[in-house]
Amino acid sequence: MSNRIQIFDTTLRDGEQVPGCQLNREEKVEVALQLELLGVDIIEAGFPISSPGDFASVQAICDAVKEPTICALTRAKKEDIDAAVAALKTARKPRIHTGIGSSDVHIKHKFNSTREEIIERGVWAVKYAKSFVEDVEFFAEDAGRADLAFLAQLTREVIKAGATVVNLPDTTGYLLPHVMHERIKYLYENVDNIHQATISMHNHNDLGLATANTIAGIQAGARQVEVTINGIGERAGNTSLEEIAMILNVHKDLGFTTGIKPKYLYPTSTLVSNLMGMHVQPNKAVVGANAFAHSSGIHQDGFLKHAQNYEIMNPEDVGVSSSAILLTSRSGRAALRHRLTLLGFDFEKPELDKIYTRFLLMADERKMIHDEDLKELIG
Amino acid sequence: MSNRIQIFDTTLRDGEQVPGCQLNREEKVEVALQLELLGVDIIEAGFPISSPGDFASVQAICDAVKEPTICALTRAKKEDIDAAVAALKTARKPRIHTGIGSSDVHIKHKFNSTREEIIERGVWAVKYAKSFVEDVEFFAEDAGRADLAFLAQLTREVIKAGATVVNLPDTTGYLLPHVMHERIKYLYENVDNIHQATISMHNHNDLGLATANTIAGIQAGARQVEVTINGIGERAGNTSLEEIAMILNVHKDLGFTTGIKPKYLYPTSTLVSNLMGMHVQPNKAVVGANAFAHSSGIHQDGFLKHAQNYEIMNPEDVGVSSSAILLTSRSGRAALRHRLTLLGFDFEKPELDKIYTRFLLMADERKMIHDEDLKELIG
Repeated sequence: MSNRIQIFDTTLRDGEQVPGCQLNREEKVEVALQLELLGVDIIEAGFPISSPGDFASVQAICDAVKEPTICALTRAKKEDIDAAVAALKTARKPRIHTGIGSSDVHIKHKFNSTREEIIERGVWAVKYAKSFVEDVEFFAEDAGRADLAFLAQLTREVIKAGATVVNLPDTTGYLLPHVMHERIKYLYENVDNIHQATISMHNHNDLGLATANTIAGIQAGARQVEVTINGIGERAGNTSLEEIAMILNVHKDLGFTTGIKPKYLYPTSTLVSNLMGMHVQPNKAVVGANAFAHSSGIHQDGFLKHAQNYEIMNPEDVGVSSSAILLTSRSGRAALRHRLTLLGFDFEKPELDKIYTRFLLMADERKMIHDEDLKELIG
Repeated sequence: MSNRIQIFDTTLRDGEQVPGCQLNREEKVEVALQLELLGVDIIEAGFPISSPGDFASVQAICDAVKEPTICALTRAKKEDIDAAVAALKTARKPRIHTGIGSSDVHIKHKFNSTREEIIERGVWAVKYAKSFVEDVEFFAEDAGRADLAFLAQLTREVIKAGATVVNLPDTTGYLLPHVMHERIKYLYENVDNIHQATISMHNHNDLGLATANTIAGIQAGARQVEVTINGIGERAGNTSLEEIAMILNVHKDLGFTTGIKPKYLYPTSTLVSNLMGMHVQPNKAVVGANAFAHSSGIHQDGFLKHAQNYEIMNPEDVGVSSSAILLTSRSGRAALRHRLTLLGFDFEKPELDKIYTRFLLMADERKMIHDEDLKELIG
């Protein structure tokens, strides 16, 4: 089994469907080209049946992008698949992503159907898509809450029908990592033809566990991950591309590789955030404004002595220019001296102690202390 | 072993040290009272030696708060512990939180010390703090990267010295959940006096795994979790209180309980975000603005048929007023009909189809469709 993880980016589909995140065609092409630069393997470009604008955007992305596979979403319906086929016409590597609900709650309350009929409809959709393109991905929606024996049966049948990838989404963000691991392991042990397809993770973040669940899935055999820039997507969003990329990069001991070039992570995050108007919180892992900022005295002192005391990644590796040492009333003498040195000042310890006492009073009042404040302080 | 998880909130210490997040004394008391209402067991109120303002805030919180234990941070130094003792004077249930680095990188590059000396200094600090208060928590900074046999030895010695809680922080946010589980399990198997203390998790989110690591620690025996509101804290922040609370609430099968009253989660998140000026991203789990917003046609249709198709929590449970159905060009007929009905309109299918076609063109252009747009549309 290969240890190369396929990065399937769905920023332009699951991300773009978020309230307020809709992009026009030119903006979508701009994001797609940035994703190509970043090194993603598959770009989910849209859901062509959903609107004329989305259809045209998928077409435009097929024309613009060279290397990645271009994927279009469909329900298990003829008109959806026909629209996807038409939208993907000029793609060098087209993929159709079709599927249907797989949990009993979806089967009963969304499709008013039965398990048997769901398998039939899924198999039909894969075969119909396969009559147009070689690369067909099947999604078993709400797989996270599906009966496991039924999910095994469904997986087996859609692979037999020609699915090249089987996506098992935790649509509601329900699973715990150890349970995800057990479920994927079960499928590898109970679906005889599972090695004829790639198993894909698509995890939502409702409980803050999307990233951990995706890693657990990889450890159990999944070799594709569906992710978005900044973790955007329905409700609490999807698995963050940047978190998965850096986990596999920092933890080379896991033995997995991706095609992602980390230095484009921060620029890509910024582009998507700006175009969509979806801000990234300062404490977001990898790409947040504070991800490499050190503020407490203990941390600043330790960081200044040796960066690896408090950093497991270099900010430059992910495209951030440098670590930040910000002065607040939680800062210690080491950080104060560091900043004064950068400003060209050099004080002996007794004098520094006096300045530090005045610094703390100022910082309790002003919160952040900037260079101008320091100059005022030392007068 | 009890299955009640102690919630240790460090919003006012690890959260407050973040650049720009400094609060004044009145604001800190306001947050502390809200945390008491929320049901946290321990409030880490500050780091008294760090500044006169922080010292005074810890005092004020001791005066204001009734139920929770009030904790103050110190390094393993006499002057720090003396300051904490003084600041905690009026606390009904005081706790001193002292400790020192435990990884070889910290021991060598931060303390220029040896493992033996670190144990000596840690044991001294616990005994010194214990001479003032009964409840002493020891932190083994950077425990996530510490040599495991050494960590076991350090844990044993500080418990012998009187530590009631041993906190094993993943200071740099480095660990993977399955490794966290193995490490805590190892300590339970190799530290003979470990049941005389509570083991605490304090995980940073540099790789997006803080929440999963904290759950893994609980599953291996930890019974206290150090968390913050909105996951704020150094760099990419700490474990989010709201995520841990709702994981244990949704997954009752795990068998753990907390004292958290979920209905105060969203109001507390909003209070902290507003006072600190630290925005919460819309796709933040549990408390983000979109955490209960449904936007794609597939999701809206499924949600309207049966909320549990796409929700594992009720928004009301965490203090959010209701789920949102927002109209964009990814919305389907079901959501459009739903919103038209709320506006008092009722169309037959052929008419609805015509309106839907015009709706999509408008939505491709305007992104979000509000009630006024709909009225214009059916005009």
